[in-house]
Amino acid sequence: MAKQEWSTRDKMLELFMSAPDRTISGERLSAALNVSRTAIWKQIKALELNGFEFSATPRVGYRMTRVPDELIGPLVSPHLDEACRLGRRILWAPERTSTNDTAIELAHDGAVHGLVVTAARQTGGRGRQGRVWQSPAGGMWFSVLVRNPCALSQAGDLTLLASVAVHRALHESGVEAEIKWPNDILVDGRKICGILAQMRADGETVDYAVIGIGINANFHREALPPDVFDHATTILTECGQPVDRPLLLARILNQLDALYSNLAQGAGGFAAVREEWKTHAHTLGRTVHVRLGDTFITGYAEDVDERGVLLVRDHAGVRHELHSGEVLFSASEKL
Amino acid sequence: MAKQEWSTRDKMLELFMSAPDRTISGERLSAALNVSRTAIWKQIKALELNGFEFSATPRVGYRMTRVPDELIGPLVSPHLDEACRLGRRILWAPERTSTNDTAIELAHDGAVHGLVVTAARQTGGRGRQGRVWQSPAGGMWFSVLVRNPCALSQAGDLTLLASVAVHRALHESGVEAEIKWPNDILVDGRKICGILAQMRADGETVDYAVIGIGINANFHREALPPDVFDHATTILTECGQPVDRPLLLARILNQLDALYSNLAQGAGGFAAVREEWKTHAHTLGRTVHVRLGDTFITGYAEDVDERGVLLVRDHAGVRHELHSGEVLFSASEKL
Repeated sequence: MAKQEWSTRDKMLELFMSAPDRTISGERLSAALNVSRTAIWKQIKALELNGFEFSATPRVGYRMTRVPDELIGPLVSPHLDEACRLGRRILWAPERTSTNDTAIELAHDGAVHGLVVTAARQTGGRGRQGRVWQSPAGGMWFSVLVRNPCALSQAGDLTLLASVAVHRALHESGVEAEIKWPNDILVDGRKICGILAQMRADGETVDYAVIGIGINANFHREALPPDVFDHATTILTECGQPVDRPLLLARILNQLDALYSNLAQGAGGFAAVREEWKTHAHTLGRTVHVRLGDTFITGYAEDVDERGVLLVRDHAGVRHELHSGEVLFSASEKL
Repeated sequence: MAKQEWSTRDKMLELFMSAPDRTISGERLSAALNVSRTAIWKQIKALELNGFEFSATPRVGYRMTRVPDELIGPLVSPHLDEACRLGRRILWAPERTSTNDTAIELAHDGAVHGLVVTAARQTGGRGRQGRVWQSPAGGMWFSVLVRNPCALSQAGDLTLLASVAVHRALHESGVEAEIKWPNDILVDGRKICGILAQMRADGETVDYAVIGIGINANFHREALPPDVFDHATTILTECGQPVDRPLLLARILNQLDALYSNLAQGAGGFAAVREEWKTHAHTLGRTVHVRLGDTFITGYAEDVDERGVLLVRDHAGVRHELHSGEVLFSASEKL
C-alpha cells in the first residue's frame, strides 16, 4: 500500500472529524487532499466497509454519520496523557499485511519516535518465532515505533515492559489478565494478547524498536480457526461486552510511555517493575515444559531474574537460565 | 557497487589463484566470467592499484605475478580451522563505503551465516556513536555476518566476545593488547582496533548480526589525521613490522566461531570468558570519566558484571551500572 494512500485517508478522516456534522463537497475534499474525486469516492467506499457511514448528497457532498471505534488518531488522542509522546501520530488503514512491517519500513524512512501504525485487519500478521497471527476485524493490531529507547543490553526489557503496560491498561479497562513468560497476556489461561518486538541496534544502542501488539478484543473466540481457538480467547468472549478500543490503546500508550521513559533515563527497566510482573505471572510456581528449538526442558519455574531470564529447576535439581523459548504448560493448562 | 562486480572479481581471483603460474587468456576469462574482455581489463587494472601484479602477453593472456596480503578468500581459507563456519565465503573489494553497510545489505538479501565482507579501504567507515572511522589501505576492514547467533537478552555479548576473539588472535600474532570497555582494543594505551556490531532482532531472538571490526594494521600511525593520531596506533608502528593480515583474519574468525558457537548453544556467553576479559582489561581498577550522552560520571571502575555492565563507584560512594557509554580516562591516559 503506497504511502500516498495513508496520508490521503488520514487527512480525509481528520477533515471529517474536525467538523463532525458538516457536509464537505467532493471538490473541497479533492482540492484539500490533492487527489481526484474518484480517489475520494474510493476512500469513502473503503471506509464504509469498515463501519464508517457517510451520507452523500449529490452536488452537495459527503457527511460522516458514523465513526466506528477503530484505532484512528482522532479517537485515540483525546485519551492520551499530556506528557505521552507515543501515539501523537497514528496511521490507520482498513487492512495491512502487518503493522510491524509497515512501521519498520517507515522507521527506515525516518518516521518519528512515537509513531503508531494500526490496522482494522492484518492479512499477514506474525507472532513470535514466525508463527501466523490471526488478525480479524474487531481486534487491536498496532505497532509502536520507539527511537533510541535503551542500551542494547536492555533490549529484552522492551517486550517485558510492554507486557506490563498492556496488563496495567487492561486492568484499567476492567479486564483482569495474567502474564505468561516472557510476554504473552492470558485471561483464564488463554491467550488474549501477543507482543512481537523487532529492532535494529547499532553498537551498544538500540537504534529503533517496533513493538507490535495484537489484542483479541471485540470479536468472538469462535472467529478464530480451530487450532488457535482452544488456547486463545477474546475480551468480548471473556467480558461479555466489547471494550472501547481507542481508549484501551491510549491507556496502553500512556503506560508504555511512562515505562519506556524511565528505561531511557536509566531509572530502571524490567528490574524496577519485576515485582509487579511476578505478582501477575502465570508462569511462576508451577511445573513447566519449555521448548528451546528442538529440545525441551521440564522443571519448576522458580523465578524471573532482573534481566527477565526465567529460572527453571529440573528434576535433577539443575537450574536452567532461559533467555528465550516457549513455555508449554503441563496437564492443567489449556493448550 | 553492484553485486555483479563482486562476483566477477572474486571468480577471477579464484581462477588465477587456483593456477598461480598459469597464463589465462582474455577469451577464457571472458567466457568463464561471462563479461566482456574490456570488463576483464578494468578488473585487472583495479587489482593492480591494490598491489596485485599481472604480466600481460598480447594474444596469450594474463598471469598473476604478485598477490598482496589483502583479505581475500584464497589467502584466508588455508588458515581456517576445519570446524570454523565463519569466512567460508569472503567478499573482498579494493574499496567500499563501509563493509558493515555491504554486509547488512547482503544479509537482507539472504546471505549465508559466516559471510565475511572485506575491503582494502573504506571511504565511509563508521565507529561507535556514528563517528567517522579512518580506513586507509594497509588496515583490516571487515564485517562478519552471523545468523541467529543468540537470544536478544545476550545481544550485548556479541561485541564483548568479539573483543575477546580479537585480543586472543592478536596475542597469537605476537601483538599484546588490552581491552577498553566495552570493546575497544588498545596497545600501549592507544586504540588499535574498534568493533561495531549492528543487528536486527525479532522477538527474543537476534535475527542476524553484522560484526564490523577495524584494525589499524600495516600502515604507519602518521597516516591518520591529527585528531585521531594522538590516541590511536597501528600494529606496524607498535611492532616495527607488518602483520600477516590474512592469517590474523583467520585467527580472529577461528576464535570468534568458537566463542559464538558456545553462545548459541547456551554454553555461556560473556560470563564464561569474563575472567579472561578482566585479566586484559585496561578499564578496571582506575578512575574513569564516562560520557553518557550529555552527562558525565566520574568514579572508580570496580568491575564488569556477567552481563558486561561496567560498575563504577563515584566519589559519593554511589555505584553506577553502565550499560553503554564512552570511557574517557583521567590524566595518565593518552587521549
